[in-house]
Amino acid sequence: MTANATALADLLAFQKETEALGQIAGRLGWDQETMMPRGAADQRGEEMAAIESVLHARRTDPRIGDWLAATEGTEMSQAETAKLRHIRRSFDRACKVPAELAAELARVTSVSQGHWAEARANDDFAAFAPVLSRVVELRQQEGQALAEGGSVYDALLGDYEPGATADQLEAMFGEMRPRLVELRGKVLDKPAPKGLSGTFGEAEQIAMAGKLAVTFGYDLSRGRIDKAVHPFSSGSGSDVRITTRTAPEDPFNCFYSTIHEVGHACYEQNIDAGYALTPLGQGVSMGVHESQSRIYENQLGRSRAFTSWLYAQMTETFGDLGLDGPEAFYAAVNRVQKDYIRTEADELQYNLHIMLRFDLERALIAGDLPVAELETAWKERFEKDFGYPVPKASYGCLQDVHWSIGLFGYFPTYSLGNVYAGCLAQALRADVPDLDASLAQGNTAPATQWLAEKVQRHGGLYEPRDVITQACGAAPTAGALLAYIEEKFSDLYDL
Amino acid sequence: MTANATALADLLAFQKETEALGQIAGRLGWDQETMMPRGAADQRGEEMAAIESVLHARRTDPRIGDWLAATEGTEMSQAETAKLRHIRRSFDRACKVPAELAAELARVTSVSQGHWAEARANDDFAAFAPVLSRVVELRQQEGQALAEGGSVYDALLGDYEPGATADQLEAMFGEMRPRLVELRGKVLDKPAPKGLSGTFGEAEQIAMAGKLAVTFGYDLSRGRIDKAVHPFSSGSGSDVRITTRTAPEDPFNCFYSTIHEVGHACYEQNIDAGYALTPLGQGVSMGVHESQSRIYENQLGRSRAFTSWLYAQMTETFGDLGLDGPEAFYAAVNRVQKDYIRTEADELQYNLHIMLRFDLERALIAGDLPVAELETAWKERFEKDFGYPVPKASYGCLQDVHWSIGLFGYFPTYSLGNVYAGCLAQALRADVPDLDASLAQGNTAPATQWLAEKVQRHGGLYEPRDVITQACGAAPTAGALLAYIEEKFSDLYDL
Repeated sequence: MTANATALADLLAFQKETEALGQIAGRLGWDQETMMPRGAADQRGEEMAAIESVLHARRTDPRIGDWLAATEGTEMSQAETAKLRHIRRSFDRACKVPAELAAELARVTSVSQGHWAEARANDDFAAFAPVLSRVVELRQQEGQALAEGGSVYDALLGDYEPGATADQLEAMFGEMRPRLVELRGKVLDKPAPKGLSGTFGEAEQIAMAGKLAVTFGYDLSRGRIDKAVHPFSSGSGSDVRITTRTAPEDPFNCFYSTIHEVGHACYEQNIDAGYALTPLGQGVSMGVHESQSRIYENQLGRSRAFTSWLYAQMTETFGDLGLDGPEAFYAAVNRVQKDYIRTEADELQYNLHIMLRFDLERALIAGDLPVAELETAWKERFEKDFGYPVPKASYGCLQDVHWSIGLFGYFPTYSLGNVYAGCLAQALRADVPDLDASLAQGNTAPATQWLAEKVQRHGGLYEPRDVITQACGAAPTAGALLAYIEEKFSDLYDL
Repeated sequence: MTANATALADLLAFQKETEALGQIAGRLGWDQETMMPRGAADQRGEEMAAIESVLHARRTDPRIGDWLAATEGTEMSQAETAKLRHIRRSFDRACKVPAELAAELARVTSVSQGHWAEARANDDFAAFAPVLSRVVELRQQEGQALAEGGSVYDALLGDYEPGATADQLEAMFGEMRPRLVELRGKVLDKPAPKGLSGTFGEAEQIAMAGKLAVTFGYDLSRGRIDKAVHPFSSGSGSDVRITTRTAPEDPFNCFYSTIHEVGHACYEQNIDAGYALTPLGQGVSMGVHESQSRIYENQLGRSRAFTSWLYAQMTETFGDLGLDGPEAFYAAVNRVQKDYIRTEADELQYNLHIMLRFDLERALIAGDLPVAELETAWKERFEKDFGYPVPKASYGCLQDVHWSIGLFGYFPTYSLGNVYAGCLAQALRADVPDLDASLAQGNTAPATQWLAEKVQRHGGLYEPRDVITQACGAAPTAGALLAYIEEKFSDLYDL
């Protein structure tokens, strides 16, 4: 081997071990939410700190810089080039942030979540404001270190969605906001469709969730489903686990969160097996990840065709649902309601929640909005977009955990995922014209195989926007999603 | 701080992280046996290799040598002295073994278990012999590196039971063997007591196992019970998990393996919380560990007093057991049968299985017994001690996994545990004269609290034999165990 080839081999071997350790850290997180005895929390904190410290040391290992330099000018395959792009990005990022700042951020955000939870329970934003101020301050400093004179917010955003910029998002949201605000006004002027009623036993919900997971292509020989307080998907490669939860009166919560997590999990499971334990062996960005969970959940799972199949399944399992046939069931699944909480929002209102957060968090990071004024700013903006006031902070700026743990630049990736899902669904329907006939039989394979082939198998091979562009044959815009939402809800609400 | 104090603090901080990483590796092992999707085996292999590689690098980190040297002559507490003794032992061991030998051992033993499983399934020792020869050869080399001219076998034994020697064990077994061989002859000449009959549903067995675990003091807020193919206990500190299994016709298998694992788990759970994530924060040796599992299982769990309570519990849950009252139940629990398998052996015969392995493995390591002759040697020795021939290799030298993964010097710690349990039970009964009255009520607290106070809380503070000596007020000998077995089985079999 030449010196170049040796450096490349050494770098990739080192990276493989790092990826494996990253998987272990992820599995510990899964264990914490599903299996860990409650008395083990403190010890688990030490264990997580230990493995994170090992991972941090590896990510900043100076040998990475040497290996990268030694591979300059080497002939490389497309996959090798992509692997090195990921490694270089991660290494550059780690080197730009001073160690003391990284440690301080880790320290502050490890306790701030507890303060947030307490403030939310007490509906007391003032008590949380000083903690949040410190988190904002540290993330500003980190963003400045990363941006090197460029946009601080973009630098933070780049952690979750490489290549995305606030300007681009602002243009996208600028197109979406007026149309969604207008549509939600019209929809809420109409009488609300009837909701579900009946008895939904926990065991039956869990069994149905398992059936839905398999229906959407989740491979249980390389995964498992457990109960947790919050649904999530965890792990890559051949060990991708999801969780679900049940509420006695709301089986849709269990079923649609399961389909959502299955979207995330199938993305991971369907990545080319040859990329396992390399930087290509996981979903390429939060936005692309969310596009998979959203298209499974919404464009497929909440479609008229699929809900007609689900209606029959649920009637068989739970008996009378208090609804007059599959069309009423479809309306119940897609019911638009006045609410305050992002995670419970329907397809129409969801992105309005995100835009609100996007604008406020940019102002926080830019220093234009003092943390002390956040609660008021939230209330003003919410009333403008939703048409009614927020009664308390736990329904407003205290509802999400994200900011408390320093996740600034993360929220917009949810909407980006929705926009990508809109584009993918349009392209999918063009490629698979009889999709609804399959969905009405509970057969998602034509859709999920298309997504596996066009998006999922590539893992981290391409840049996020490029994956979507290649899959759709055109660069993503909000148009497809807006047209889909307007058509769906105009039809449902007879506008 | 002085330079000495700084070195000590740095060393202990480094060690704490190593201990936390060791706990993570253990939890991965637990996950593999209980939760892991079957398709994830290969990826898990990479993950385990990655964390073991991190642990190996830390255990041989040259800074440990520098820190140890810098702390020479420092005033230290008893606990600090003990921590450093463990660290020094581990570091010296790691430094003595050449890296290539350690890597080759890891490589060979990672695949040899598969060969063993296949050979056992096919009853084909000849197919396994070349693999085992290589394992023996490598462990001989390792033992030579560790022994530095001393006894190779003792060096290997020291990994599991620091301070123990083959000479000492030989003397102990020399006292035990004739008395146990004689007793088993007498017992098997007598008519066998009746066994259990009835229907033992899986859910009821698992529920009863959980009840037994709590009865013996297992703290479920810092542990959990799951099903696995083989029962085991895993973890230290505030996260100590056990597994169990059920067989439809043999509930004792489930119940007594649970009590056994609870003994191991309570040892870990009851260690002084201040020792957590230090070298003192886990059981001090395999022998002392086994003394706890054995005394829980046998001297307490299989006692006449406790089985009278268990009889009532089981009758209540399972109905008629086909036995004529608690005395017949006590006889069924302690039934001595002709068998070949160590893990299923009763209290009387168990140690005969160990002695056989102890003598054969010493001969293998000394080079006096070629691996090719192991099967024949096993058969000859078995017939001598048990009185009947071994019909096939899977009932003979292929029954245990240990040697296939290089565990030479491990088997005798099982008997050492039994001997220690005998001594502890004698001392316990002297200190708690009304023990049987409590056990007959299903109250194990007087016994388990005595063990927690005398043995378990110390963790790794004292040397293994010293823990037992201090708890019993005298150095351990086989006398107490032999007297207990002879009295129990003479009574049961009316000798």
